Amino acid sequence: MNSYSSKLVENAVNELSRLPGIGKKTALRLALHLLKKEKVVAESLGNAIIKMRDEIMFCSECFNISDSEVCEICANPKRNKETICIVEDIRDVMAIENTGQYTGVYHILGGIISPMDGIGPNDLNIDSLINRVSNGNIKEVIMALSTTIEGDTTNFYIYKKLKDLNVEITTIARGVAIGDELEYADEVTLGRSILNRTPYESTLSN
Amino acid sequence: MNSYSSKLVENAVNELSRLPGIGKKTALRLALHLLKKEKVVAESLGNAIIKMRDEIMFCSECFNISDSEVCEICANPKRNKETICIVEDIRDVMAIENTGQYTGVYHILGGIISPMDGIGPNDLNIDSLINRVSNGNIKEVIMALSTTIEGDTTNFYIYKKLKDLNVEITTIARGVAIGDELEYADEVTLGRSILNRTPYESTLSN
Repeated sequence: MNSYSSKLVENAVNELSRLPGIGKKTALRLALHLLKKEKVVAESLGNAIIKMRDEIMFCSECFNISDSEVCEICANPKRNKETICIVEDIRDVMAIENTGQYTGVYHILGGIISPMDGIGPNDLNIDSLINRVSNGNIKEVIMALSTTIEGDTTNFYIYKKLKDLNVEITTIARGVAIGDELEYADEVTLGRSILNRTPYESTLSN
Repeated sequence: MNSYSSKLVENAVNELSRLPGIGKKTALRLALHLLKKEKVVAESLGNAIIKMRDEIMFCSECFNISDSEVCEICANPKRNKETICIVEDIRDVMAIENTGQYTGVYHILGGIISPMDGIGPNDLNIDSLINRVSNGNIKEVIMALSTTIEGDTTNFYIYKKLKDLNVEITTIARGVAIGDELEYADEVTLGRSILNRTPYESTLSN
């Protein structure tokens, strides 16, 4: 026999323990929790996961997650389409939206350049960003990547690609402590760092 | 708009964050992980959870989880049916099975008596235990509950119910440190504590 007494449980534990940060013991705890609850709890959870993955779309403009072809932010006529804020992933969009300080649109890279993890510029949504800036009526690009070595590298790569395209390139103010992940910054600091963004070139001399 | 940009993601995050120990931030991290992976990953996970909850059975003898009406342990002709080991939940069965030191069968209470959590004797599989001992040819009952106040209370309650039924009542040796959860004990200690079990009455004078 397997040590779980049940192939059904063993299978669920194996699947759950594939999630990041969830080991076999935690997975078993979650599985037993679901066994104790009504069937509808497990059904809602399972179906929500499947439905999300099956039906999710990525905005054709900014690569934000979306329930339709263009995300709610890009489709909103009140947003300023002349300003693009470049972020690493969707959690950063949520963090900036929560500050209520930003009225432009976004461009989600889907990661940052990280040779250690085998992520190069071609793995990110950078070409589409160049196209957006080349074709559209973009006045300003705000770089809002995490202030890590990888973030700085990515900033500099994008800066080199954009600097001849007649667009203002800024970065959010470094009110966010160096080395901190963007998503964990408090809303006041993050909001202020958007308002106090500085020309990217002025940060190069530091 | 909701801060998740997507009702699909919001729904999945809400469902995931209902799991014990998983908050909104972790739930979002898990959801985004699933969005990055192939569809089949989310489908396997979702279906494994639903299928487990839909099809799981509880052994009619010992209340262990099972894929059939009688669990693999109770159905095994090599197990000694005259010895019943009483445990709190299924994780304890797995922990004891992993020691390889026990050849009897189990009885899973489904919890321990805990007035603080509103769990009384009637919420546990205690009546069925009494019936098993009264009707069957049971020679020994081993109490293997966690060594906490609640565990001691439950031990004593069961002892009082069983003491006139002509069955030997033992507890696992307290080689497991007082206050420790059973499932985290190392296999050697736990295995030895099963071998060195002592008459329950001898522990009352301590």
